[in-house]
Amino acid sequence: MSSPTQDVPSPALLRLADRLRRLIGAAKVITDPGQLRTYECDGLTAFRVRPGVVVLAEHRDDVVATVRMCAEQNVPFVARGSGTGLSGGAVPVADGVLIVLSRLRRIVSVDPDNARIVAEPGVINLWVTQQAAPHRQAYAPDPSSQQVCSIGGNVAENSGGAHCLKYGFTVNHVMGAEVVLADGAVVHLGGSAPEHPGFDLLGAFVGSEGTLGVVTQVTVRLIQVPEAVQTMLVGFRSVEDAAGTVSDIIAAGILPAAIEMMDALAIEAAEAAVACGYPDGAVAVLVIELDGPSIEVDENFRQVHALAGARNAFEIRIARDGDERALMWRGRKSAFAAVGRISPAYYVQDGVIPRTRLPEVLAEIDRLAAVAGLRVANVFHAGDGNLHPLILFDDTVDGAVHTAERLGFEILDACLAVGGSITGEHGVGLEKKAKMADQFSADDLAAMQLLRCAFDPAGIANPGKLMPTPRLCGERPGVRVGAPDPALGEVF
Amino acid sequence: MSSPTQDVPSPALLRLADRLRRLIGAAKVITDPGQLRTYECDGLTAFRVRPGVVVLAEHRDDVVATVRMCAEQNVPFVARGSGTGLSGGAVPVADGVLIVLSRLRRIVSVDPDNARIVAEPGVINLWVTQQAAPHRQAYAPDPSSQQVCSIGGNVAENSGGAHCLKYGFTVNHVMGAEVVLADGAVVHLGGSAPEHPGFDLLGAFVGSEGTLGVVTQVTVRLIQVPEAVQTMLVGFRSVEDAAGTVSDIIAAGILPAAIEMMDALAIEAAEAAVACGYPDGAVAVLVIELDGPSIEVDENFRQVHALAGARNAFEIRIARDGDERALMWRGRKSAFAAVGRISPAYYVQDGVIPRTRLPEVLAEIDRLAAVAGLRVANVFHAGDGNLHPLILFDDTVDGAVHTAERLGFEILDACLAVGGSITGEHGVGLEKKAKMADQFSADDLAAMQLLRCAFDPAGIANPGKLMPTPRLCGERPGVRVGAPDPALGEVF
Repeated sequence: MSSPTQDVPSPALLRLADRLRRLIGAAKVITDPGQLRTYECDGLTAFRVRPGVVVLAEHRDDVVATVRMCAEQNVPFVARGSGTGLSGGAVPVADGVLIVLSRLRRIVSVDPDNARIVAEPGVINLWVTQQAAPHRQAYAPDPSSQQVCSIGGNVAENSGGAHCLKYGFTVNHVMGAEVVLADGAVVHLGGSAPEHPGFDLLGAFVGSEGTLGVVTQVTVRLIQVPEAVQTMLVGFRSVEDAAGTVSDIIAAGILPAAIEMMDALAIEAAEAAVACGYPDGAVAVLVIELDGPSIEVDENFRQVHALAGARNAFEIRIARDGDERALMWRGRKSAFAAVGRISPAYYVQDGVIPRTRLPEVLAEIDRLAAVAGLRVANVFHAGDGNLHPLILFDDTVDGAVHTAERLGFEILDACLAVGGSITGEHGVGLEKKAKMADQFSADDLAAMQLLRCAFDPAGIANPGKLMPTPRLCGERPGVRVGAPDPALGEVF
Repeated sequence: MSSPTQDVPSPALLRLADRLRRLIGAAKVITDPGQLRTYECDGLTAFRVRPGVVVLAEHRDDVVATVRMCAEQNVPFVARGSGTGLSGGAVPVADGVLIVLSRLRRIVSVDPDNARIVAEPGVINLWVTQQAAPHRQAYAPDPSSQQVCSIGGNVAENSGGAHCLKYGFTVNHVMGAEVVLADGAVVHLGGSAPEHPGFDLLGAFVGSEGTLGVVTQVTVRLIQVPEAVQTMLVGFRSVEDAAGTVSDIIAAGILPAAIEMMDALAIEAAEAAVACGYPDGAVAVLVIELDGPSIEVDENFRQVHALAGARNAFEIRIARDGDERALMWRGRKSAFAAVGRISPAYYVQDGVIPRTRLPEVLAEIDRLAAVAGLRVANVFHAGDGNLHPLILFDDTVDGAVHTAERLGFEILDACLAVGGSITGEHGVGLEKKAKMADQFSADDLAAMQLLRCAFDPAGIANPGKLMPTPRLCGERPGVRVGAPDPALGEVF
């Protein structure tokens, strides 16, 4: 985490801003240092960089003109949606242009018959579902930030959410995208049909964190709103029992819309913040939501109830109406902010583990936290094995932020040790690029770098994010596999 | 469609074969012209090319050694699984190496707790489900060729199947892959966890038809075997009613495991071949399969029954047991081969349209067929809008094969005209690469070519497939967007 001091934008950058003003309109181009400060960080506020120039794009052509100019002048650019990302993916470059997409917020078309909506990248996630609602359809990926985060940001980060257990991530719902590549070319990836020939560049683009280009239009698929939804809150006296119940439910062939888990400290925080009335004395709670035809939901509910009982659940509470359901979710969805009630500061991590390894990894997190002398509240998408440890610290204590950051990285190491991943849905961004080399081999990273360099050989699209200290794109590695093979050496 | 005459392998290629024999063992390297003929085509038998050398790989290292040698000598290579592909994706290169992966057929691991199987690429699709069956799990993608097609081929083509309506395509089930790139580097894409950071190269690799490298190990996810399965056969007197029923079912929020449709000529062929006892006088039949918890299946079944009735279905037959279900499926699954009973030869096409456009596209296919003077039997995954027109022709008539091919392409044009795609699950291969330019703009294709060139700058991995007359990888286009912008021209 760092907060570098900022220089005044270079004269070259100011000239570029002047040219852009003439091209796309003066009101869309910001260089005033005070105004620029608004954009110096995203949701990971520990990283701050004041951008050289901000462009408030209103049309695709504004993006094209800006990117083309950046390409011509070899100036880096960063795209930004709502700025709610948690890995620093939208942190600007001091000597570059920040392209803000919030004003690109038109719903281009709604096609309920084919269950598609076409939207601009600044459209807020929740608006898509609101547009679809009259047709009893919905946009499935629902990050906790869905009221403020943008579809474009969701595409960049391949966002998840509580209901991704059943419905999948953003990549499973984006069918097509119009994209401005790093040289200003406008290309269309995918489309409205479920399958497309050729390379699945759309799949590679979703989750590329702004390093392959800027999305200017997105076609998403909609799901039918299920006939019935049932939500239950289950209290356990041990983490093992809660985790075991999760595995049992999945093993029984039941795929809930969501299975969320919170540990004792997370429950304490949520109670302090929103008085959600979670079971007294619970060491862990599960929020389980089933959806589908009502007859299926009822039957699955009966089974889930039995499975939780068999794992010593001491309280099973069923939401009788929308208000009770909302209260159950309020505890879960407010958990991040709620830890502010029990700690001066906190740091959210995001790791993934095989679901079956939950108890042992939680025990390891406890151990690591004790060694670091910090508390960790755990809130997670248990069905996916996607952990969100909230590391509590006192930011008035010298060095505490670094201790918290170090503990976060140790937790990621524990995830990797059981075959997991360093991020589930928050992305790599600035924050975790150094950890990429712990998850991937040098050859794996070199393969990723091939893609990056193909689309952005000059490295101007969101540089310094995602990839750890990338090799320059000019360097083409030769045969990159292991040591030379003596036998092969002989024959050639 | 062409059958070029074959030259004897060049001396350079024979020297390469000798070197390979010393390196990986003589028994794995074939250069005998008679033996080579076995490999001259895949399921699209109209395209035949005798390979220069065939390597029967038994281990990953055989693949690595072969690809490295090809890279060193700038010799093209083509990977082949079971050779059941229908677009010529595994047609060899005359002056190149064909790497046969059928002997790489180990199941590496079975992990029912995390619902994963790791398999080598030569493993047959159905074997995966057989391995999973004792755990009441299954591998969802089920091409009609599932008893013979390989997992590696499925990855190359992003194969589908009747049940992909509910469960998705191969790309939705492959979690990780070990891949040998065109320079011989071994990289690991994805992994066992549901989400991975970095570029989703795995997504781009699945469906890349062998042009990005060779897969040597695949991690797939398993689904739980549903508690209940119900299959029904519904007869209609009009295509419009059958297609309307499909739309009504989806609009009602029901997601069947499969909705297959056959038209009158396809029904006639299936009856002639397997006496499947489809309803007399049906102009169209639907085979609808529902799966899930039995209580849900029963309820959905009731609704589907009512929806079909409301669209004038004149016969609704429900499979009472496994035998009756198998008979219903036999008609559908044998349809391709069955048209051999009513025509000397046939040609299978594969296109995709929005589901709502089914009736008009089927009418257009009728019209085009009448103009061409040929008959077309239609069999398709109706829920997905994935058409398989079977174009019947007499191959003893001069030029008939070309008329059939032309008609197939006109049908694809009709699919594109309503916003569809030139292939749903059979791939582009040799057959349809010329059509890629009809579906994608020059800029879209250039973006795909960037990926190809990044991974295979020399163009030795399955050359001449997928991409239409690709530009050479050395040529780097500049700004590829439209015409120069005069305003931009002025400021720089």
